Amino acid sequence: MAKKPLNIGMIGYGFMGKAHTNAWTTANRFFELEHQPVLKAICARNADAAQTFADNWGYESVETDWKALVARDDIDAVDVCVPNNLHKDIAIACAEAGKMVLCEKPLAINAQDGEVMCQAIEKAGVPNMVWYNYRRIPAVTFAKHIIDTGDLGKVFHYRANFLQDWTISSDLPQGGAALWRLDAKAAGSGVTGDLLAHCIDTAIWLNGSISNVSAMTETFVKERMHNETGKVEPVGIDDACAFLCRFDNGSLGVFESTRYARGHKALYTFEINCEHGSLRWDLHDLNRLEYFSHRDEGTVRGWRSIHVSDGDHPYLGNWWVPGLCLGYEHSFVHQVADFLKSLETGEPAGPTFRDALETQKVCDAVLASGKSGSWTNV
Amino acid sequence: MAKKPLNIGMIGYGFMGKAHTNAWTTANRFFELEHQPVLKAICARNADAAQTFADNWGYESVETDWKALVARDDIDAVDVCVPNNLHKDIAIACAEAGKMVLCEKPLAINAQDGEVMCQAIEKAGVPNMVWYNYRRIPAVTFAKHIIDTGDLGKVFHYRANFLQDWTISSDLPQGGAALWRLDAKAAGSGVTGDLLAHCIDTAIWLNGSISNVSAMTETFVKERMHNETGKVEPVGIDDACAFLCRFDNGSLGVFESTRYARGHKALYTFEINCEHGSLRWDLHDLNRLEYFSHRDEGTVRGWRSIHVSDGDHPYLGNWWVPGLCLGYEHSFVHQVADFLKSLETGEPAGPTFRDALETQKVCDAVLASGKSGSWTNV
Amino acid sequence: MAKKPLNIGMIGYGFMGKAHTNAWTTANRFFELEHQPVLKAICARNADAAQTFADNWGYESVETDWKALVARDDIDAVDVCVPNNLHKDIAIACAEAGKMVLCEKPLAINAQDGEVMCQAIEKAGVPNMVWYNYRRIPAVTFAKHIIDTGDLGKVFHYRANFLQDWTISSDLPQGGAALWRLDAKAAGSGVTGDLLAHCIDTAIWLNGSISNVSAMTETFVKERMHNETGKVEPVGIDDACAFLCRFDNGSLGVFESTRYARGHKALYTFEINCEHGSLRWDLHDLNRLEYFSHRDEGTVRGWRSIHVSDGDHPYLGNWWVPGLCLGYEHSFVHQVADFLKSLETGEPAGPTFRDALETQKVCDAVLASGKSGSWTNV
Amino acid sequence: MAKKPLNIGMIGYGFMGKAHTNAWTTANRFFELEHQPVLKAICARNADAAQTFADNWGYESVETDWKALVARDDIDAVDVCVPNNLHKDIAIACAEAGKMVLCEKPLAINAQDGEVMCQAIEKAGVPNMVWYNYRRIPAVTFAKHIIDTGDLGKVFHYRANFLQDWTISSDLPQGGAALWRLDAKAAGSGVTGDLLAHCIDTAIWLNGSISNVSAMTETFVKERMHNETGKVEPVGIDDACAFLCRFDNGSLGVFESTRYARGHKALYTFEINCEHGSLRWDLHDLNRLEYFSHRDEGTVRGWRSIHVSDGDHPYLGNWWVPGLCLGYEHSFVHQVADFLKSLETGEPAGPTFRDALETQKVCDAVLASGKSGSWTNV
Repeated sequence: MAKKPLNIGMIGYGFMGKAHTNAWTTANRFFELEHQPVLKAICARNADAAQTFADNWGYESVETDWKALVARDDIDAVDVCVPNNLHKDIAIACAEAGKMVLCEKPLAINAQDGEVMCQAIEKAGVPNMVWYNYRRIPAVTFAKHIIDTGDLGKVFHYRANFLQDWTISSDLPQGGAALWRLDAKAAGSGVTGDLLAHCIDTAIWLNGSISNVSAMTETFVKERMHNETGKVEPVGIDDACAFLCRFDNGSLGVFESTRYARGHKALYTFEINCEHGSLRWDLHDLNRLEYFSHRDEGTVRGWRSIHVSDGDHPYLGNWWVPGLCLGYEHSFVHQVADFLKSLETGEPAGPTFRDALETQKVCDAVLASGKSGSWTNV
Repeated sequence: MAKKPLNIGMIGYGFMGKAHTNAWTTANRFFELEHQPVLKAICARNADAAQTFADNWGYESVETDWKALVARDDIDAVDVCVPNNLHKDIAIACAEAGKMVLCEKPLAINAQDGEVMCQAIEKAGVPNMVWYNYRRIPAVTFAKHIIDTGDLGKVFHYRANFLQDWTISSDLPQGGAALWRLDAKAAGSGVTGDLLAHCIDTAIWLNGSISNVSAMTETFVKERMHNETGKVEPVGIDDACAFLCRFDNGSLGVFESTRYARGHKALYTFEINCEHGSLRWDLHDLNRLEYFSHRDEGTVRGWRSIHVSDGDHPYLGNWWVPGLCLGYEHSFVHQVADFLKSLETGEPAGPTFRDALETQKVCDAVLASGKSGSWTNV
Repeated sequence: MAKKPLNIGMIGYGFMGKAHTNAWTTANRFFELEHQPVLKAICARNADAAQTFADNWGYESVETDWKALVARDDIDAVDVCVPNNLHKDIAIACAEAGKMVLCEKPLAINAQDGEVMCQAIEKAGVPNMVWYNYRRIPAVTFAKHIIDTGDLGKVFHYRANFLQDWTISSDLPQGGAALWRLDAKAAGSGVTGDLLAHCIDTAIWLNGSISNVSAMTETFVKERMHNETGKVEPVGIDDACAFLCRFDNGSLGVFESTRYARGHKALYTFEINCEHGSLRWDLHDLNRLEYFSHRDEGTVRGWRSIHVSDGDHPYLGNWWVPGLCLGYEHSFVHQVADFLKSLETGEPAGPTFRDALETQKVCDAVLASGKSGSWTNV
Repeated sequence: MAKKPLNIGMIGYGFMGKAHTNAWTTANRFFELEHQPVLKAICARNADAAQTFADNWGYESVETDWKALVARDDIDAVDVCVPNNLHKDIAIACAEAGKMVLCEKPLAINAQDGEVMCQAIEKAGVPNMVWYNYRRIPAVTFAKHIIDTGDLGKVFHYRANFLQDWTISSDLPQGGAALWRLDAKAAGSGVTGDLLAHCIDTAIWLNGSISNVSAMTETFVKERMHNETGKVEPVGIDDACAFLCRFDNGSLGVFESTRYARGHKALYTFEINCEHGSLRWDLHDLNRLEYFSHRDEGTVRGWRSIHVSDGDHPYLGNWWVPGLCLGYEHSFVHQVADFLKSLETGEPAGPTFRDALETQKVCDAVLASGKSGSWTNV
């Protein structure tokens, strides 16, 4: 049976452009799907670099103006992998052109922009998704399955950290293609939009909405050379951010993120404590889910280290055999597989723009609370 | 050379009375000290129970009124192991009687009481100490040594958790000898004074003073049967408490404590992230200190799991051989050894009452912030 | 610059056919190489199944007779992914036809066959490789780099385990496409050729040749239904095998493998203890290398948990960013990349057939010693 | 109710003398027992050192000749803490004098001596015990409880390691009070009697008798200065020893011990793999038992990390509260408590001399096999 082609237009070829492209080329090898992604065009301002990327990955053509890409009739879906401040205009244009949109996270610079994007997308009625990829690490997906059974009972606590250490040196510049994440104009915020946004997306998915927050932010290095201006300029992003929160279900949350935690490269961890059990997970050992069940007999209770690599674990039946690890990029492959499946079923694959807007609102509340020093409603 | 006897009067024979008594009887076996504690008297309202305890541990006599104990000429030092609300009167009476005082933590019900106690103690000029025993787990003491070298550089982050799960059942009553920790009148507060106080004491010791805090507290079970009245009564303590803070040195702190974290029995952990390295520790595996040094060569950097059990690690030269674990009660033995040593040198063994008052002030600020929802100065 | 096509003919489409094919299609996406593999043909006796596989992965054609495949002029390299007892004839035919050969491990049913294969390959002078993929897990490769510096000094001990638990049920049949690994005629041996062969390959690579062995083998389930005959037949393989050995460098080895270690899915671990340091690794958490350096200052010595995911770690510069995990299949991608690179440099990519023969000889000695109960020279 | 005094005569005041004495003084503080040990006499050739030890620990008197100690009417039980080559004569003399005997492990220099000792002890009918203390680490005792339920089913594998690194330097001398463990005349053997003996005792206790063994031994440093002769002399002990074995129940065993495993101080680990579950334990984190139950539901199976510190875990009800760690010396306290309890019940506390003789026989077989290179029956 012939597959239905799905023509992909990719905007951006950085770290995320590479991760997404790999996912588009890999998903159909391992998952049985009706649609077959076709790498139709890659778009970037630098034509040579774009061509090199196209050659390497098999994109059929190159564009240097995203508006031209969006205008093309042979593009079904646009994958937006550019700095955060460019998401809004592109996404809206795509919606207006009737394209499906897959937008890198965070959805927008702020919730106000995000709301406008959601309205455009929903008006157009196009399939849409935001790349909060960690939901689809099998161990994280499996945590969701366990929580959804209801077996864990009432939730008391949720805590998440995302700890890195790569910006400690004050010699590191800000801005430009490589370091736009340090430039407030391009990124909107620092760790809040970059790292906490992941933690918040997972938290809402696993534990429901967040009601209000009290946050603390800090910029440890106040000035950095700017790659675009060549001058030392004030740093506008948050280097670190922690917040307390209450979830709608009555549980308490504690979140922390930083790029100044020496020794941690990308240590995203979360833990949820419930009446009858608890779960925790760690990105550095991502195939494992730790699970404590209070329903076990008393003397033999202990945190179970579940190697989530069996055929009946989420997504695993499509890969190797028990005990063999998956890695980071598999989360993107699973997201593509689920997106393609959603085209078959009509059931949206989360997080949609609307879902991601909720995360954006929490981020906004966190940043506002960090400034005001007050508890802030989401 | 004959040792100088130090006559101990113990008030209280509960969990802490047992831990302290064990320390008084053990310290001189393993540490060379000029003073020899003598278990002169145990004091408790229940004469029979006190006598049984005295027989088991070798106390020479029993008192049923703490005032009688304090009045005895043959008592040099009083060890106060009673519920928190009784610390103040006893400590002041001891000071006025010229006795050394060793008070179980937290120092007092609140900082106001603690201040009065400090003034009395300092006016009397008697040796004094508060039993924040975790400072003397060798791995924790060793963390202090590493930090004190200055090798770790500027501090960015400090985080600590103390997670338990023993009060989740709403059938658990409050109050009485066994459960006074759940009774606000006896304990003053819940996890803040019981668990966070430990975290704060260690934090101040390792990382200096805390400037201000923003806290969130929760009482999950709102009513419990009271063991003394036999009636269901409102629960006045905090079941869970988390707070953000800033230290005077500019670093950020995140603290969390609860008795509702299913799967954790007494999981006290802390981590400190600095410019050139990081440290972390875990009470459930207390002989280990994890240490990351950014000064190691790049490709072979990693968190070092140091089994703090060598002869040149703190206190370890007095125990066994490398690789053999110490346990919980050794921290009290070390505290006694250090206290006795302080009598030789005249150099106080921390935390003194004055040191513990600083922790108390943080606890008060945390509880106040939990109520007001505002950042609160310590 | 146009790439040189390298036309691949794959024989077999099972678990390994899938892992290898994925590697052939992925390597050039992440590594800059002169050659571009082209999936020319897949060969399997079942034409329909082969066609489905071809469609999924993009093979241009299908063959049902391996001799036809080997005879084709448009095939440059043959990848042999069939049961062990078929390796010999295919490899020799390939060599005689002047094809490059990449053979799944173990090289052969026994060393006698392996020797014949090596002679054929070497006579033909064709590039060749055996798929001992674990050498190219970055943490394992990094272990090799550390050992090769000589910093660890004299080696005292090497130990390796490969523990699984999937054949405990006596209801599991033997033989057929899915379970040929339990059929002695197809597999040659049980855990020795399947699992210990991996451990031995790594060991020889890291620690040099093995001189002699003393082994113990066991078949726990003596009879199993045979999928091909439909009858209960004796089980001819070893379910478990452990051996002691001496390496040529004077160090002692202990190896153990089983499919009866309840709780372990594919727990391949090794450890090497040397004068100045030690290393250990674990397939279930494959991105990590543990490293103990005795050259660290005494009190802060500890096993370092190195997350081998930085850009300057082996192969990692071609993937993502620090802290993000790779998985099982990356080892095959790296092997393809190294093989393609070897075609550029003329420097063979190990393990060659000749290298793999040495592992085969150890396996033979182990099986012989298991039977005789005597120490056996390799 | 008055306790029955049990008068203890201790021979030796080294590391073990200290550990045992601590146990004799502590057991009654934490366990309710009919007998109260009385530290009647300490015996050592150096009168001054013995007196210092007596003063520190409260021994009432000092002897310098063990025969004098054994002859004293006021001694009920003799605790033998001297080098292995002295066990035999003392134990036999004690038995003949009708004293209870508690002998440090290993029982004897060899099984022949051990048999004579057993006969003497059994002829005298005196209570007796050998200090294989690791049986009474609560997590190890709890492993025994789990195994004894039969829930784990048929046993397939047992493996144990005892790894140290303290004798790697060739500058370390042999012999004398501090280093008699390196002197074959005093110790009988090296790691076999010192470390493997512990592993074997636990293994037999948990998994039954060992039938036969195939061993490999090595002496890495062939000559060391001797502390007694002042000359460089050949080293007679085994620095490392590994062996394969079969248990009477059909399971396979792999054991390894060394003092040349850089990075390991005293890493005693064991693991048992059975049909329905597995257990493993590690002396460096001794409060934890890892337990895998195949009876758990498939997707949530995982190794449980049980912190053996609850009131209903073995021995724990007598100590602190859940989550608080015990240490090394508690194993001796438990052994004393069980020995004293055995005097109440008449039920011997294992391991008796006869039990320890079985371990001795395995050690002898291991050493013989290491020499002969052949499988050797126990």
